[in-house]
Amino acid sequence: MKLIFAIVHDDDAIELVNTLTDEGFGVTKLATTGGFLKAGNTTLLIGVEKEKLDDVMNIIQDVCKTRKGVISPPSPVLGATGVYIPTPVEVTIGGATVFVVDVDRFEKI
Amino acid sequence: MKLIFAIVHDDDAIELVNTLTDEGFGVTKLATTGGFLKAGNTTLLIGVEKEKLDDVMNIIQDVCKTRKGVISPPSPVLGATGVYIPTPVEVTIGGATVFVVDVDRFEKI
Amino acid sequence: MKLIFAIVHDDDAIELVNTLTDEGFGVTKLATTGGFLKAGNTTLLIGVEKEKLDDVMNIIQDVCKTRKGVISPPSPVLGATGVYIPTPVEVTIGGATVFVVDVDRFEKI
Ligand code: NI
Ligand code: NI
Ligand code: NI
Repeated sequence: MKLIFAIVHDDDAIELVNTLTDEGFGVTKLATTGGFLKAGNTTLLIGVEKEKLDDVMNIIQDVCKTRKGVISPPSPVLGATGVYIPTPVEVTIGGATVFVVDVDRFEKI
Repeated sequence: MKLIFAIVHDDDAIELVNTLTDEGFGVTKLATTGGFLKAGNTTLLIGVEKEKLDDVMNIIQDVCKTRKGVISPPSPVLGATGVYIPTPVEVTIGGATVFVVDVDRFEKI
Repeated sequence: MKLIFAIVHDDDAIELVNTLTDEGFGVTKLATTGGFLKAGNTTLLIGVEKEKLDDVMNIIQDVCKTRKGVISPPSPVLGATGVYIPTPVEVTIGGATVFVVDVDRFEKI
């Protein structure tokens, strides 16, 4: 048995929880903020049999993989002569930090 | 030293924290939602000496064991001809998912 | 790779997160309440290479070490004849409980 601590973006958390649950894996969501991947992260606790660890890792990779996105930055404060035309900016979204630890003992009560 | 991650029902969390604290065990409550045992769960972090692991496991078993309960389901929206008589429904309450991991190093600062 | 669970006082959490981040360590803040060090604690998840574990432990020790502080207790409800003069009380602040666990597998996605 392994216990996975997956720190993912809030944006990806719901899809990841749904996908893992659909596939029969137990997931617990812990509230999280900041750090590893800046603000807006969620830490998930996932218990998994050793033989299925790769399956879970693949799902996390699939849902959370780093990809390009485009955002329109908020308009800045302008001086009297300026006109602000928001320029969409390409950003990197997704990404996850995953720690797997060995479980000594597991009980379902 | 062992570190226990116990995912328990919100309903059982307070009693479990109180019982463990009374018995001298250190418990930290992490906010949790959903997954292993559906919504409304709390994850507890419990540090314990190896020799006392069974004591803690017994306390968790005792407080959180699965048992039958009865709830009155909320009344549904009724049509013009219907009268709703709530029927108490037997449900299973309690239950816990417990992961124990080995502690490499422990420091109290 | 090691995974550190550090339970620290809320008062020390921000400084600890900032110091660790400045030094290049990844920290994730989990919401926490009570237990190990009474109410008002924060649990931090810190991933660190084995060789740098002592560096992180030293930072935690430095920021969170137990020290003396002084607080003015809130005024009690008084009878008709009483005048309440708040007396500053010396208290112990700081302190941390730190668990280090071995990481089986680590992935940055
Ligand atoms: Ni990010
Ligand atoms: Ni349940
Ligand atoms: Ni304290």
